Amino acid sequence: MTIRIGIAGIAGRMGRLLAEETAAAGATLAGGTLRPGTSSGRAPAGTPILADFAALCAAADVVIDFTHAEAARAHAEAAAAARKPLILGTSGLSAADEAALALAARDTAIVYAANFAPGVNLFLAIAERMAAALPAEHYDAEIVEMHHRQKVDAPSGTAVALGRAVAAGRGTTLEAAGRESGRDGHCGPRGTGTIGFAALRGGQVVGEHTLIFAAASEHISLTHRSFDRRVYATGAVRAAIWAQGRAPGLYGMKDVLGM
Amino acid sequence: MTIRIGIAGIAGRMGRLLAEETAAAGATLAGGTLRPGTSSGRAPAGTPILADFAALCAAADVVIDFTHAEAARAHAEAAAAARKPLILGTSGLSAADEAALALAARDTAIVYAANFAPGVNLFLAIAERMAAALPAEHYDAEIVEMHHRQKVDAPSGTAVALGRAVAAGRGTTLEAAGRESGRDGHCGPRGTGTIGFAALRGGQVVGEHTLIFAAASEHISLTHRSFDRRVYATGAVRAAIWAQGRAPGLYGMKDVLGM
Amino acid sequence: MTIRIGIAGIAGRMGRLLAEETAAAGATLAGGTLRPGTSSGRAPAGTPILADFAALCAAADVVIDFTHAEAARAHAEAAAAARKPLILGTSGLSAADEAALALAARDTAIVYAANFAPGVNLFLAIAERMAAALPAEHYDAEIVEMHHRQKVDAPSGTAVALGRAVAAGRGTTLEAAGRESGRDGHCGPRGTGTIGFAALRGGQVVGEHTLIFAAASEHISLTHRSFDRRVYATGAVRAAIWAQGRAPGLYGMKDVLGM
Amino acid sequence: MTIRIGIAGIAGRMGRLLAEETAAAGATLAGGTLRPGTSSGRAPAGTPILADFAALCAAADVVIDFTHAEAARAHAEAAAAARKPLILGTSGLSAADEAALALAARDTAIVYAANFAPGVNLFLAIAERMAAALPAEHYDAEIVEMHHRQKVDAPSGTAVALGRAVAAGRGTTLEAAGRESGRDGHCGPRGTGTIGFAALRGGQVVGEHTLIFAAASEHISLTHRSFDRRVYATGAVRAAIWAQGRAPGLYGMKDVLGM
Repeated sequence: MTIRIGIAGIAGRMGRLLAEETAAAGATLAGGTLRPGTSSGRAPAGTPILADFAALCAAADVVIDFTHAEAARAHAEAAAAARKPLILGTSGLSAADEAALALAARDTAIVYAANFAPGVNLFLAIAERMAAALPAEHYDAEIVEMHHRQKVDAPSGTAVALGRAVAAGRGTTLEAAGRESGRDGHCGPRGTGTIGFAALRGGQVVGEHTLIFAAASEHISLTHRSFDRRVYATGAVRAAIWAQGRAPGLYGMKDVLGM
Repeated sequence: MTIRIGIAGIAGRMGRLLAEETAAAGATLAGGTLRPGTSSGRAPAGTPILADFAALCAAADVVIDFTHAEAARAHAEAAAAARKPLILGTSGLSAADEAALALAARDTAIVYAANFAPGVNLFLAIAERMAAALPAEHYDAEIVEMHHRQKVDAPSGTAVALGRAVAAGRGTTLEAAGRESGRDGHCGPRGTGTIGFAALRGGQVVGEHTLIFAAASEHISLTHRSFDRRVYATGAVRAAIWAQGRAPGLYGMKDVLGM
Repeated sequence: MTIRIGIAGIAGRMGRLLAEETAAAGATLAGGTLRPGTSSGRAPAGTPILADFAALCAAADVVIDFTHAEAARAHAEAAAAARKPLILGTSGLSAADEAALALAARDTAIVYAANFAPGVNLFLAIAERMAAALPAEHYDAEIVEMHHRQKVDAPSGTAVALGRAVAAGRGTTLEAAGRESGRDGHCGPRGTGTIGFAALRGGQVVGEHTLIFAAASEHISLTHRSFDRRVYATGAVRAAIWAQGRAPGLYGMKDVLGM
Repeated sequence: MTIRIGIAGIAGRMGRLLAEETAAAGATLAGGTLRPGTSSGRAPAGTPILADFAALCAAADVVIDFTHAEAARAHAEAAAAARKPLILGTSGLSAADEAALALAARDTAIVYAANFAPGVNLFLAIAERMAAALPAEHYDAEIVEMHHRQKVDAPSGTAVALGRAVAAGRGTTLEAAGRESGRDGHCGPRGTGTIGFAALRGGQVVGEHTLIFAAASEHISLTHRSFDRRVYATGAVRAAIWAQGRAPGLYGMKDVLGM
């Protein structure tokens, strides 16, 4: 029998993508919950609609939640009570929420990540290893990202995460290494060991990140391009399949990907 | 008989590259001048050393000068008096120098450019045409450049020239279009019609420039990479061959390249 | 009053994209025809459905046809009779069809192109100019394209068109210049003046093309990336707006783009 | 006291680069040997010239040999006898040579690699990990390389090594996975799990390799660019410093880089 996956907020944009990816992976869609006050109209036809998250846990082998930070704690506790693995993709959790998550993870497997794109997680893991292998005094690390024209801040959260990964690989922190972000005007020569950031904005780019290690005689660079948000759903379903039967604990996408 | 090329400052770094490129092009090295106070020791073996620029003009069919801005005016006047084409690659000329240049160009062909790399000049010409063809409300123009770690300012002069070319193609100026250079922090959404600039620094990159036009459904981009400074010598020798027998006038590399 | 655009085959995939782009451009959707045997169910709600192409011409200022090669001749004749500009995006026309097209273009403006993506047409025009400016003995031209994993042939039609444009810019033909496509094994050194082709296949890439001119000291390259097929609809609507009130004649996207 | 490095064939092109990089690393140049029949004229001024490889081993803490495959066996035995670490960069060793190398490595540390560029070795190690993390049924692996116009074969040895690394990461071999190299003409759809190769040739590119993993919603790619052959000398000197005081054994650059 195939794994039965339950999806919180199944009538929303992300919920529908999760349902499609569940089907694409050959898994069974156990059912979904609705956001309070919404109808089931936009849920995939024929999906069992469950009354609440506890009912969803009862009906499924693994549950996926990409809804809202406010619900994360209650959902984690419900999953723990039902001993069902939880894939949690909401961002903006408070420290108290994260503590509750760690507690719930004593009773069930929880995969919690800021970004479920397999390539982005791989990128972060590899960035750290590359930085550890390439001496900072010879290899200048530069990060350039491009996003759609509506994005209001720079650099992107993923670019900063990349910078932190590079710093960690070098045994330091981004703050201690120093960031050179948005060079403009007379900036002086590049500092040795600092990490550079540049942001491009244009069109409808979902997300493109490049990390360059530039030495005098060679450059090595890593690029990730996201084409649509579906990639997050693909990663979450992959995490669900991985989590089934897994021992209790708090996991990240790094664990799912075996990095 | 092949064209005879004379080179000012032939014992310097650029002078020697010019001599090598003259030979590579199958032209004859007519001779060179030395920077006052230097010896001929670093000039190519067997090169006739001329006493001054006027003597160089007498010995050559075309003369190339990449020495110093202070000498540009006198050299232009000497070339005009001798009716010999001049290829002038010094930067930092004053308005008075440029006026003197225009006057000298009434008597001989002068090719004057800030950058003799054929690809860079082609890049500038094409950037303008692309900008004219792609509506600014749909195609966001972004310019990203990378240079060696010692470079102290951003964006590069060539990046700014690219921005001016894009603005000109859109029937405006860079100032009027608006530049978004070095995004960092909360910048707000991208302005329609503005031109974005981003600067990367690292390793020993001689110069790398990319211009992207990003629309919702397509991106079109142009990239130029310089690998060594020899490219400027190659372009100057090409200009010299083009200038031989040319009518008096002030020309740019655009003319040499037939753009 | 805004321009009224009529769309042949409005209930098809391309027809609906054309309707959306008509609205996005602030133009009026005059109506559409249906493919024989289909219902109007998939046409945008509220669209007037016309009985045939002649009726569509009567109702519209400009008509767009991306349906089938077999219909092209009759549609061109109908547009000519109605003195309404036609934007024709069907491929696979026979020589006889093209002759009929030329005849019809004596009475009305017809824009006919194999690819309506503005960037691709710009790319082709620029490739020719670049090739004309960069001597073949110093600048090796290489074309690399990437498409989705289902594509069965290589190189792509657009890659070949790029190769033809490069050859034309050099005053020769692709056949005479020589193509080096799909190097594998012992190929010998690269021929001077030949044009190289390489094909990548993977994922769901709609289309990505890069043309590189590689010299010893510099590289200059041009890249086009298509993200979705909507770009062809955008280009066609742009051609429609350009064609309104235009003198009779057979035009290409090069004319629309002012290249 | 700094490490004393001895260099075989110090008057050759690679020998001189090794001497320069030894100085740049702050190490001491213990001396060098000459290729039989050559003079010391092109060795760095003041370098002690040793009579043979055994004398070089006696004078140095670590020895570097990038000379010829025929000498590798004798050099390894001399280094083993002297209990001095050896950095061996010659390619084309026979199976018998490699067996002799393994034997010699029982008595001293030997670092042996086909390519000493840190970035290339990192690239190979990372390629394997990426391939292990990204399922072959969703991520198509494509390798594209560019080299100078004189290169006579395709794909490059490093490209093939990358392909082998990808296959290894997927638990298979390049032969079993299948290679699609040099697509041209009607090739049919891309095979799932195969590895694609494409080769560009042009200009004087020292070496450029890109490995792309292309899925429907995301691409992740890795690029390495070599700008000059000095990078191999840099890597070898780094290996020498790493090898000093190291336990006997046969090592690769992967060990030096801590990957």
